[in-house]
Amino acid sequence: MDSLSNNPSQATLSKFIARCLVAAGIRTADAAKTADLMSQADLIGQDGHGVFRLPQYVKRIQSGGINTSPSINTLEERTATALIDGDNALGHLVMSHAAELAMQKAETTGVAWVGCRNSNHAGPASLYAMMPLQKDMIGLYVAVGSANHLPPWGGTDMLLSTNPIAVAIPSANHPPIVLDMATTVAAYGKVKTAAQRGEQMPEGWMIDRHGQPLTDPARAAEGFLLPIGGPKGYGLSLIFGILAGTLNGAAFGRDVIDFNADSETVTNTGQFVVALDIGAFADAELFKKEIDEVWRQMKSSALLPGHNEIRLPGERLAAVTQERRAHGIPVAPELRERLDVLADELGVQRL
Amino acid sequence: MDSLSNNPSQATLSKFIARCLVAAGIRTADAAKTADLMSQADLIGQDGHGVFRLPQYVKRIQSGGINTSPSINTLEERTATALIDGDNALGHLVMSHAAELAMQKAETTGVAWVGCRNSNHAGPASLYAMMPLQKDMIGLYVAVGSANHLPPWGGTDMLLSTNPIAVAIPSANHPPIVLDMATTVAAYGKVKTAAQRGEQMPEGWMIDRHGQPLTDPARAAEGFLLPIGGPKGYGLSLIFGILAGTLNGAAFGRDVIDFNADSETVTNTGQFVVALDIGAFADAELFKKEIDEVWRQMKSSALLPGHNEIRLPGERLAAVTQERRAHGIPVAPELRERLDVLADELGVQRL
Repeated sequence: MDSLSNNPSQATLSKFIARCLVAAGIRTADAAKTADLMSQADLIGQDGHGVFRLPQYVKRIQSGGINTSPSINTLEERTATALIDGDNALGHLVMSHAAELAMQKAETTGVAWVGCRNSNHAGPASLYAMMPLQKDMIGLYVAVGSANHLPPWGGTDMLLSTNPIAVAIPSANHPPIVLDMATTVAAYGKVKTAAQRGEQMPEGWMIDRHGQPLTDPARAAEGFLLPIGGPKGYGLSLIFGILAGTLNGAAFGRDVIDFNADSETVTNTGQFVVALDIGAFADAELFKKEIDEVWRQMKSSALLPGHNEIRLPGERLAAVTQERRAHGIPVAPELRERLDVLADELGVQRL
Repeated sequence: MDSLSNNPSQATLSKFIARCLVAAGIRTADAAKTADLMSQADLIGQDGHGVFRLPQYVKRIQSGGINTSPSINTLEERTATALIDGDNALGHLVMSHAAELAMQKAETTGVAWVGCRNSNHAGPASLYAMMPLQKDMIGLYVAVGSANHLPPWGGTDMLLSTNPIAVAIPSANHPPIVLDMATTVAAYGKVKTAAQRGEQMPEGWMIDRHGQPLTDPARAAEGFLLPIGGPKGYGLSLIFGILAGTLNGAAFGRDVIDFNADSETVTNTGQFVVALDIGAFADAELFKKEIDEVWRQMKSSALLPGHNEIRLPGERLAAVTQERRAHGIPVAPELRERLDVLADELGVQRL
């Protein structure tokens, strides 16, 4: 009850994030835009990618690892593509710029693919995949993860990241279908959460350097994540890393900076976003009704013993969003303490 | 030795396939094009998708399930997109047309996305993803599989297929990186192969309707395939099915025809291909050298106990292609017998 009544609204959370970012040296408009996207991440239930990241971002800004006066430029451009230089801005600024450009281009060309270099961690993949939904477009987003936790299949050198993909598809009377997934069985954030809670991990998330299951998250540094489907997940991570990193002149492989361990070195993070205009293929209203029918078909499947419902990707996101719009965003006591310390250090009003 | 010396070259195999298709009623030029692609499937080691499929295709043609005089049309077009109506042609004709159109468009726009409806089984996904390589483009291909073997996560109604994805990326001095994967742990073809050989399947490929592991491939009809990464693979299959099927006005979900069981009903298969021009983002020659460096980095990783090398997706494909170019394409005795019967029935010269 007490914690519920203390839950900030997205607007309150956004204002708090913005004043911290401004105090750290980010320009007012940039801080407002980043804060809006970070608080949206919390609103949609991506707790590991919203305000939780603020102390880390501020530390990086203060260490000179982020450009506080960036000029985001287009380096290469064709009618349906662009390569953006993020000028080491906060990733949210780079990727929202990229998504907007992709949507603008796709309106005439039907599809657009915009890649970025010199970007940074931009929060949850689904944020950018969902932006094109407002224009009746399908969105697709891929990022090179901000730390390598995955070796090539059969190896032990951590050359790959969880390299997530998100795809968002609108419907008429249901929530959009939003897939947002790492190419590993567990995202590294889940390992950190297990460590914080003192819980063991299930077998299948990680192995150690001898190939044995690693279930103690406190020993996570001794092992690495496992890809989905074994060599298939390795293949997906490799391909996504090349498309989001190498193709854009961004870091991939040994060049990826572990932004959890290093707050100073420029990360040169790479990402790309694709906007696909539904109207180039179908009547958008009819298509959205067909996605309702996809919902209906999947939901109506008979159930496997031990399961009590079929869920569609994006269903939990929609439910959490509705709940948090109505009742605010829960902030765990330890996180609130860290945010209070941060606010005091920055000399701004607490959340 | 004997079997080795009997191995047909790709040219010999292609001519055999073409004369069978012509005898079955396919137009000469269409038969030659399809035969070239089918024999390429064998050449690159995709044994389950080449001449192996010929008896099934001929049966479908003879049953009226394929249009032998198709007119492949563009239904919708923007500068970077097209929606193709395959007019129920052989899938190889539809998808090679689509890939060529995508390459042509991407040359100016930078990226192009071409979707198809009223197509058919088109062989291995990698064939179409690899076509753009010849123009220094990256290729991407996704198909709705030609039979549903996968329920939504937690369900038992087979509403989804293995919906494969292929992505091809060129390098300078190494083979191209070619990922070609089903969204299930095992493709259904591997189950069929195990059944033919009388082998058991490992746990993790299939479960039965009670959720128990199914390892006897003779009982495959009693169960279903498992997706990679559990709900993640289900999510990928769902998204790929919508993008390749629903968006194109092609079959998805309950509308998918099991083309192994039914040779007459029009399948309305959906696929799409994306061509991404490397030159829109980077100097193509430099990029290909960077992919060589990706090869080098992955290959140089220390090894996990029990593994003796790191492989890249496409490495086996390249090795098999080289071997078969030099020594011909092995045709298993049972398959050769089936092809002899087919040739005799069609009144054409045997392989």
